[in-house]
Amino acid sequence: MTPDTLRPLLDRIGADMAAAEDRGRVADYIPELARVDPAQFALSVAFPDGRVVSTGAAQTRFSIQSISKVFTLALALGRLGDSLWARVGREPSGLAFNSIVQLEMEAGRPRNPLINAGAIVVADALLGQYGPRELLAELVRFIRSACEDDDIHINEAVARSEAETGHRNRALAHFMKSMGNLQNPVEMVLGAYFHQCAVEMTTEQLARAGRFLIHAQGAPRLVAHARIRRINALMMTCGHYDGSGEFAYRVGLPGKSGVGGGILVVVPGQVSVAVWSPGLNAQGNSKLGSEAVELLARRTGWSVFG
Amino acid sequence: MTPDTLRPLLDRIGADMAAAEDRGRVADYIPELARVDPAQFALSVAFPDGRVVSTGAAQTRFSIQSISKVFTLALALGRLGDSLWARVGREPSGLAFNSIVQLEMEAGRPRNPLINAGAIVVADALLGQYGPRELLAELVRFIRSACEDDDIHINEAVARSEAETGHRNRALAHFMKSMGNLQNPVEMVLGAYFHQCAVEMTTEQLARAGRFLIHAQGAPRLVAHARIRRINALMMTCGHYDGSGEFAYRVGLPGKSGVGGGILVVVPGQVSVAVWSPGLNAQGNSKLGSEAVELLARRTGWSVFG
Amino acid sequence: MTPDTLRPLLDRIGADMAAAEDRGRVADYIPELARVDPAQFALSVAFPDGRVVSTGAAQTRFSIQSISKVFTLALALGRLGDSLWARVGREPSGLAFNSIVQLEMEAGRPRNPLINAGAIVVADALLGQYGPRELLAELVRFIRSACEDDDIHINEAVARSEAETGHRNRALAHFMKSMGNLQNPVEMVLGAYFHQCAVEMTTEQLARAGRFLIHAQGAPRLVAHARIRRINALMMTCGHYDGSGEFAYRVGLPGKSGVGGGILVVVPGQVSVAVWSPGLNAQGNSKLGSEAVELLARRTGWSVFG
Amino acid sequence: MTPDTLRPLLDRIGADMAAAEDRGRVADYIPELARVDPAQFALSVAFPDGRVVSTGAAQTRFSIQSISKVFTLALALGRLGDSLWARVGREPSGLAFNSIVQLEMEAGRPRNPLINAGAIVVADALLGQYGPRELLAELVRFIRSACEDDDIHINEAVARSEAETGHRNRALAHFMKSMGNLQNPVEMVLGAYFHQCAVEMTTEQLARAGRFLIHAQGAPRLVAHARIRRINALMMTCGHYDGSGEFAYRVGLPGKSGVGGGILVVVPGQVSVAVWSPGLNAQGNSKLGSEAVELLARRTGWSVFG
Repeated sequence: MTPDTLRPLLDRIGADMAAAEDRGRVADYIPELARVDPAQFALSVAFPDGRVVSTGAAQTRFSIQSISKVFTLALALGRLGDSLWARVGREPSGLAFNSIVQLEMEAGRPRNPLINAGAIVVADALLGQYGPRELLAELVRFIRSACEDDDIHINEAVARSEAETGHRNRALAHFMKSMGNLQNPVEMVLGAYFHQCAVEMTTEQLARAGRFLIHAQGAPRLVAHARIRRINALMMTCGHYDGSGEFAYRVGLPGKSGVGGGILVVVPGQVSVAVWSPGLNAQGNSKLGSEAVELLARRTGWSVFG
Repeated sequence: MTPDTLRPLLDRIGADMAAAEDRGRVADYIPELARVDPAQFALSVAFPDGRVVSTGAAQTRFSIQSISKVFTLALALGRLGDSLWARVGREPSGLAFNSIVQLEMEAGRPRNPLINAGAIVVADALLGQYGPRELLAELVRFIRSACEDDDIHINEAVARSEAETGHRNRALAHFMKSMGNLQNPVEMVLGAYFHQCAVEMTTEQLARAGRFLIHAQGAPRLVAHARIRRINALMMTCGHYDGSGEFAYRVGLPGKSGVGGGILVVVPGQVSVAVWSPGLNAQGNSKLGSEAVELLARRTGWSVFG
Repeated sequence: MTPDTLRPLLDRIGADMAAAEDRGRVADYIPELARVDPAQFALSVAFPDGRVVSTGAAQTRFSIQSISKVFTLALALGRLGDSLWARVGREPSGLAFNSIVQLEMEAGRPRNPLINAGAIVVADALLGQYGPRELLAELVRFIRSACEDDDIHINEAVARSEAETGHRNRALAHFMKSMGNLQNPVEMVLGAYFHQCAVEMTTEQLARAGRFLIHAQGAPRLVAHARIRRINALMMTCGHYDGSGEFAYRVGLPGKSGVGGGILVVVPGQVSVAVWSPGLNAQGNSKLGSEAVELLARRTGWSVFG
Repeated sequence: MTPDTLRPLLDRIGADMAAAEDRGRVADYIPELARVDPAQFALSVAFPDGRVVSTGAAQTRFSIQSISKVFTLALALGRLGDSLWARVGREPSGLAFNSIVQLEMEAGRPRNPLINAGAIVVADALLGQYGPRELLAELVRFIRSACEDDDIHINEAVARSEAETGHRNRALAHFMKSMGNLQNPVEMVLGAYFHQCAVEMTTEQLARAGRFLIHAQGAPRLVAHARIRRINALMMTCGHYDGSGEFAYRVGLPGKSGVGGGILVVVPGQVSVAVWSPGLNAQGNSKLGSEAVELLARRTGWSVFG
């Protein structure tokens, strides 16, 4: 597959998505995000060397939200290695992205680092290595390196908006604090977490940033090969909350979604894909985004499953 | 990777496993299986064309148990197509292989076809297509075709032993019956289910049988390409019960385990692997079997994740 | 309160209930019970000496269903004493009457003897003391003694009807069997259980039978005083499934309901009350029955709470 | 029963308790309470007219903690009437006092007002009627009236200590806030809640204060008769968390425990009882306190159950 052969495929998918009637529902629990126009759509594919093919609003920035969990997980594994796993598991959760039930059943140890509770623990672990500002600076630096683009920033208004309304995440964090699985003050950890979620990128940038997970000639080498595989495995089994099995079944590629409507998808050894459409499905994943990458995978034959 | 380059790798793994001290615990809830000698180990790799490289007791038959769920799923998708999904989901369960909790929370619809409840529903669905004996004959025929070996049978003593003691599965089946998700009499469905679990194979046979999921030149073509991918996806996210995330993380390949101590692993496009060692870990998967395929994947570089 | 002062109260309640528009829904999972006319209502109050005041169809027999759990509990405590509590708890369940979730969370030990799972354990315990027929004979004998009336029988058609459709109870029983909390064969225990539920009584008979829990001069003395208190305590906290708190709040008296639409209520030291109306509320308790005893308690001032 | 006949009974119970070897474990999650000497014990019985008979350290103040929930419930029902029940249920919880699982299963509506989540909702509801200081002043005034003693205060150090460490309660409150079941800011509600828990009383004072629930000649009349019954019913079914059924079974009287080791028990129409011993049992209720009131009930014959 080359950029030239890919371009007409993307254009056709873009046209299909433009014609979609049911676009899902924009998340409304973060006021700043609730105002986003649901009619938007963008899809970008980045090759290892950095060339990108796109369709739709690929220059429009959106809030990456939970996709940031992939970057902080990579950072945390780099700094802490396998000791991280003492505090967070590696199993799919079988429940909603912000469920607190499972946290109680498992005594405050989140099921995996890609659900909210797990990512809050990852942020706490990183705060044992960095000060709060330093951590966010390191995260942005990591994303910029992966993307080879310095024009990537945190949207303070979104971070603040989530800080004001993030009661469910506060419940998760205080619960884990009460179980001894947070070492820093809850508000400090949540401050870092809300800021990491507020990173803004275009699909072009996100597709380029995802190249650190491709493991192919020419892609930025920020993480060891063995670790790339493991992060991809976690994205495959846990990247879409309680829709992870469905995504693996339909798309067959590791991916991570965010409530901002973005999804990062990795085609190991080949390309990195970013899609964005703000309307969500019942599992909290981008509705058109999921459909678009399913079409893309089917038409290109991309799948890790043979 | 050729049979010749693979052979010394397998021998080394066989030697490592022979030296293992903690071999896990043999499942004791099926009396016939409880008597199996835990010191046994076998590992076989089948190439698409049918050549097999093995180490250990690769000619010893063992009870494939839940690995049979992969074959009945393939049969059911072949006969019923996507209508099967009205009665069973595609998400990892996040709980033990025989949990009834989730079944109640989800009103009698099992989370996926690779946990017990889901496989019982698959058996019930197939019993809408075949009579009980006919179904078992069809299953054996399917496995023999995949394996290109007619010396594969059901062990009646094991089926009877499980029928006498399978109260947990009866609880699952009666629960689903009460919720309207079983159409045939409970004892008829369980009869078929206990018999499918009692198929006996050697690792050589199982590795050869698994080739229908490889999708490569020379492998038996029993299932459409798109369906192969989907079955592999389900094995990846759901094939090891509440250890599925761990297996994906450590091994990075689709697999399905059984309480008899066997595991079937697919390396898409390349080979099919079968491992057997009767001692189980805490999640009910073969302890040495899991370790052996992890070593094999690491040393060969096999992984779907890049 | 005397029979004479009580009679006009009962008549007024009977009239109120006759005028009720929403009569609840007749249970439909036992075919024999589903055919009962929902327009029926009866209320009887028995004094310690056996005098009874009634309103409505107090001579019509109905299936006492779960009210039988009170009688088998009394029998089991008499035969086994406190050793019974090793196998069943004494806490309200917080869930539906036939929930299997809690059973898994608590490893096969039912929360209390007044939910289905608990009563099945009680039946199993009694089957360690009596043969199956002997047990049912003993139960009927106990109820006849309490009632001082020999015209009390088991309706075989109802027992058979439940045996054919009782998949949820089979699920509970097989689950407990798999956890080692049933000693006899599942079908033997369920046979006893379905028969005990199929005892038929009129409200007059049931009110008279309930006198063994009053502890007052003239009432039949079948159970020690300390045990009467304890059975009443269990009826108060657990007698109405997940509506037990509501019944205590509204009525303030120990009671036990059955899906046949009956409720037995004890006014300690004073009277025993039986009410019947086949339509059930959302918690599976008689809708008009609950309302009638609430009215009765309010108008008589009967309450254990001051 | 008169004060004179009661006194020797109390002395004997005091002696029994002094000889107890296993005194339970003092709660350690509130640092200020963790330092309390577990060897202490006190038991007081108040008659409607205010006469009190005691044994042990009946002049020592202790933190009433969750017993305060009875007083705030009475206040809230007085101000809001039955509209309170739109936001909190009346069923026993079947789970630990601070469980968050059930809260998620029931969409943020606590099961009853006597578990932590429920009492936090009650505090929030009262904060719609009073300012924060005004509410605490009103609560103290209510308790002083019931007790007819003005020397009752809030221990600021305990309130602060709990505010610093109360992460589990913060988790509950933020969860309910996220579900729309808290109207005031979380920290304001928890501030009130932590302060209400920090009221300090002696058993003499607490026994006297409990008289408003006796409904007898001479007792303070602060709450309507119908409401007294209903509060007693809630104490019976929900007053001891997941040990409520056990307390009803063993003691047979409405009661409410606190993690400070106190228990308030009502004998309707007769007396009010307060017991205190800081060591707790597995359900979080005073170990010796529970045993002492069980002995007291048995020896006096007090029970609501006949």
